Amino acid sequence: MTHSPLKNRLESLRAAMATHKLDGFIIPHGDEFQNEFVPDKFQRLKYMTGFTGSAGFAVILKDKAVAMSDGRYTIQLKQQVDQDLYQLNDNTKITAAKWIGENAKSGDVIGFDPMLHSKQYIDALLSDLSKENISLQPVTSNLVDSVWQDRPTMKWGNIAQFPLQYAGVSHHDKIKTIAGIISAQNCDAVLLSLPDSVSWALNLRADDVAHNPILLARLVIFANGQATLLIEPERVTADLIEYLGSNIIIRNPDDFGTIIQSNVKQIWLDPLRTPIHFFQTAYDLGIDIFEQKDPSIILKAQKNSYEQNAMRSAHARDGVAVTKFLYWLEQHKGDTDLSELSLAASLESFRRQSSLYKDSSFDTICGWNANGAIIHYRATEESFSKIPANANGILLLDSGAQYEDGTTDITRTISFGTIDPVIRTQNTLVLKGMIAIAKAKFPHGTTGAQIDVLARKALWDHGLDYAHGTGHGVGCFLSVHEEATSLSPRGQDKMESGMIVSNEPGYYKEGSHGIRIENLILCVDTNEHDELGRRILSFETLTLVPIDQRLMDKELMDNDEIEWINHYHARILKEIGPHLNADELTWLQGACKAL
Amino acid sequence: MTHSPLKNRLESLRAAMATHKLDGFIIPHGDEFQNEFVPDKFQRLKYMTGFTGSAGFAVILKDKAVAMSDGRYTIQLKQQVDQDLYQLNDNTKITAAKWIGENAKSGDVIGFDPMLHSKQYIDALLSDLSKENISLQPVTSNLVDSVWQDRPTMKWGNIAQFPLQYAGVSHHDKIKTIAGIISAQNCDAVLLSLPDSVSWALNLRADDVAHNPILLARLVIFANGQATLLIEPERVTADLIEYLGSNIIIRNPDDFGTIIQSNVKQIWLDPLRTPIHFFQTAYDLGIDIFEQKDPSIILKAQKNSYEQNAMRSAHARDGVAVTKFLYWLEQHKGDTDLSELSLAASLESFRRQSSLYKDSSFDTICGWNANGAIIHYRATEESFSKIPANANGILLLDSGAQYEDGTTDITRTISFGTIDPVIRTQNTLVLKGMIAIAKAKFPHGTTGAQIDVLARKALWDHGLDYAHGTGHGVGCFLSVHEEATSLSPRGQDKMESGMIVSNEPGYYKEGSHGIRIENLILCVDTNEHDELGRRILSFETLTLVPIDQRLMDKELMDNDEIEWINHYHARILKEIGPHLNADELTWLQGACKAL
Repeated sequence: MTHSPLKNRLESLRAAMATHKLDGFIIPHGDEFQNEFVPDKFQRLKYMTGFTGSAGFAVILKDKAVAMSDGRYTIQLKQQVDQDLYQLNDNTKITAAKWIGENAKSGDVIGFDPMLHSKQYIDALLSDLSKENISLQPVTSNLVDSVWQDRPTMKWGNIAQFPLQYAGVSHHDKIKTIAGIISAQNCDAVLLSLPDSVSWALNLRADDVAHNPILLARLVIFANGQATLLIEPERVTADLIEYLGSNIIIRNPDDFGTIIQSNVKQIWLDPLRTPIHFFQTAYDLGIDIFEQKDPSIILKAQKNSYEQNAMRSAHARDGVAVTKFLYWLEQHKGDTDLSELSLAASLESFRRQSSLYKDSSFDTICGWNANGAIIHYRATEESFSKIPANANGILLLDSGAQYEDGTTDITRTISFGTIDPVIRTQNTLVLKGMIAIAKAKFPHGTTGAQIDVLARKALWDHGLDYAHGTGHGVGCFLSVHEEATSLSPRGQDKMESGMIVSNEPGYYKEGSHGIRIENLILCVDTNEHDELGRRILSFETLTLVPIDQRLMDKELMDNDEIEWINHYHARILKEIGPHLNADELTWLQGACKAL
Repeated sequence: MTHSPLKNRLESLRAAMATHKLDGFIIPHGDEFQNEFVPDKFQRLKYMTGFTGSAGFAVILKDKAVAMSDGRYTIQLKQQVDQDLYQLNDNTKITAAKWIGENAKSGDVIGFDPMLHSKQYIDALLSDLSKENISLQPVTSNLVDSVWQDRPTMKWGNIAQFPLQYAGVSHHDKIKTIAGIISAQNCDAVLLSLPDSVSWALNLRADDVAHNPILLARLVIFANGQATLLIEPERVTADLIEYLGSNIIIRNPDDFGTIIQSNVKQIWLDPLRTPIHFFQTAYDLGIDIFEQKDPSIILKAQKNSYEQNAMRSAHARDGVAVTKFLYWLEQHKGDTDLSELSLAASLESFRRQSSLYKDSSFDTICGWNANGAIIHYRATEESFSKIPANANGILLLDSGAQYEDGTTDITRTISFGTIDPVIRTQNTLVLKGMIAIAKAKFPHGTTGAQIDVLARKALWDHGLDYAHGTGHGVGCFLSVHEEATSLSPRGQDKMESGMIVSNEPGYYKEGSHGIRIENLILCVDTNEHDELGRRILSFETLTLVPIDQRLMDKELMDNDEIEWINHYHARILKEIGPHLNADELTWLQGACKAL
């Protein structure tokens, strides 16, 4: 019996556990920054188990181990993980806590890295495990790191300012605002532990990770208006020091305790978004903790007029690129070498034509027919579909761009050849839902969950639905999945003017085809009030790309919906048309003709 | 300065406080059964303060006192409460906890009656007050009762069986089911402390309180399938003993501790619906408490096929009575003596023509024009509006009946003379919302909050809304406000087939008019599933009374809505028509003509 590398790694980890007198160790997919796109250096779950999914968890005990993820990844777990080494588990059915409770022994001590788990997560896990007399122990140096040979290093990106012409508010003013908020809660300081929050607060961007221009750093803001940036010393330049100014000093990432120990009596920490390590540091120093959501999140979600204009510009630019691609695609439907991968590459080539283009905002989802029904589908070099010349069917294309002034996220479902009328009906129902959100008017106080239903109504009427939310927040040259009110049954926060969210209902027929139509929308104040004195809000659609009329059944649409589509297409013709060549324009005129 | 009776009562109460070494005492509106309609004997708040609203709270301190209620009752508090004796407070702005915290002194001990407050309420109050170093002390005999001269006695009603032909499931089987549920949670017993739950579980009804045929009693069900009814001994008859059978024994209301002390290790108590007294009793006996929602509530909310048929019969009967009234009203619009009170009385006289009629299910809301805009309006002998002969305007009429087989609740908005087109538009928007709910199809798992939005959409599109939920559960010859999924932004529970709820969107223009259209609807299984495997649910409308076409603007309605109305009216003509005389039928044919 040969020792596979993964078996060796598992044995080394168990040896490290023994050294630390631990009976188990927890390895989550996530990194210390809650990154959506985890850098190679932090891909500990992949290193140990081989599993590359975007969510997951391993638990190593002395005599057994488990790799788990949710139902999306059941097949991928089986393909990637050696079941001689790891049991597999769907943690939406058996939670990590339950698995540990059933497989560890009473009295066992399970280690975890306190930088990789929020306080809320560890509290909940501890509450479940203590019933089984199993305890948790933080291990300050991650055991995987200690056994990881040839571990990738972090390649830090360049740090750049996000210009005031886009940001609208200086980092000095943002820090003043947050200082005021924490003062009002009698706190002396707050830790912004999410790079997303730090990048927004400081108007800084970087290319530290793929797809998301966040700067991997943390920021402590004090009630007196001063702040400390926690960042690797090798990244500090004279430009950065000058930009930050005299109120913001720079310290090493590990200096959190040092900078709060002398002058902070109460610190604001977010239990859901901050590693438990920082709570422990504050406890150990005898500092009171005010547990509350990161105060920058709601500020960041409500875009100011500069950010709104920057996002409008980015969307007009992106509209030109995607429209040019759609024209190109129509000219190439007879080609014999089209594939999900080639189309994604072609689309990106049109976006790259802009000097403001920085990156895609996520890995493009390009799903031909049955692949479109897999909601988190990604074509890879190992597995992708070709699209035969002059084929019949539909292509689901979900993509986005990072421009230096804004982030886009758009899905179009594109018709190829002859279309089954049933698909046309389904697409029209999805479109009706998308339009219902786009033209919704509602009083301030309305939650994301309430708005979500409007997108589902037309599908529900036909006994159909989709198994995902209708929309997520989007940042301004920041995360494509940013926190705002979630347009989903879980969205219990209020929709506020200035929030930008996606509007993306869909319909998926397993093994056959997938439909999704996605625009980004900006919540705006109508300047009207209802009789209860509440402001009335509505949405402005930002995305400017035609929606495929070959997939619409006008008979299923009411006059208001037809009017909305015609108005939207007229707007596209007016705003995108001038940036096209003559052939492209002729095509766009056809694509935008009145229904 | 003369001593008013209320001043004397306050002085006596303060003397009682001194005897008990208390610095304050809390007097809620509610009674020990959480009754919606509080019997005279339990009207302690009214006795002390004069305030008769349906919600409120007084706190008596040594040197000051307060009477508080919510914003609905601001004016009524001023009218009814002597401000020389009591401060007034809107407790949606300053909570009781906050008022006590600001007005009592550190170290003060505030008494409360542990039968009148849930555990959850006292826990929350205590948590707030302990910060101010104020403590709470249960007082087992209510101090108001001890000073109450000429206190009304309780007039117990007759106890009757709710026949199996309506209930569908025997009380023996219901108790078996609940015994199984509590066993599964390792509990030895559960206390059903709400008369509503007890009446449902035992298939018993009584006329103990107005409008609601509940039996004021409590029930302990044991995991072994036995049960103990806690009820006043003078109410026990041989018939009752025989009906209950050998598995259900009868004890005095105060015997709770005695019956659980020897054989119960863990008891299921509902912290929101059970007086803290019962928790204290269990604690003192060393019995573990399993805190969870009363298990009968979800069972009661999901009507079985017998209950559904009983409710259908009650609604057909009620439809005949209300339709006859509407015809009568049309013949009397020229009368000079019409008033909100006379119309309510007339409506009830039509209902009384049925031998199965027992009572109204609540005090009729009959609001002419501006009074219709007051959501909780009640005309009284002291204050009501007359309706001039041949007047112009609209009447909002919200009423319901208790029949021996079911409970009804219906609102119609009725046109008088010439109608402002703006009102017709508003009424049509309300109607569109009502229809949207009535014909909704949605997957199992959908919550009341999600469904609620469908009723508001048409109003939102015009910048309008209403400041109440869209629907509440309704019992089967039980409470007209029964717990089921709330069709409101607060409704986070799932809609289940068999639930009966009201569907009552509205629109209110303060000082001018109010519009509401209310039908009861039954949630039914369509026997279809969506692709995610979820059952698809829809609603069957139970209420059968024409909706005033003079207040509809067909131009604002889409074809599906017009079809729904026409189908609904055709159904009414078919089901109600045969029970009318020739003149009534002719009128109904006109009222039900196709739009």
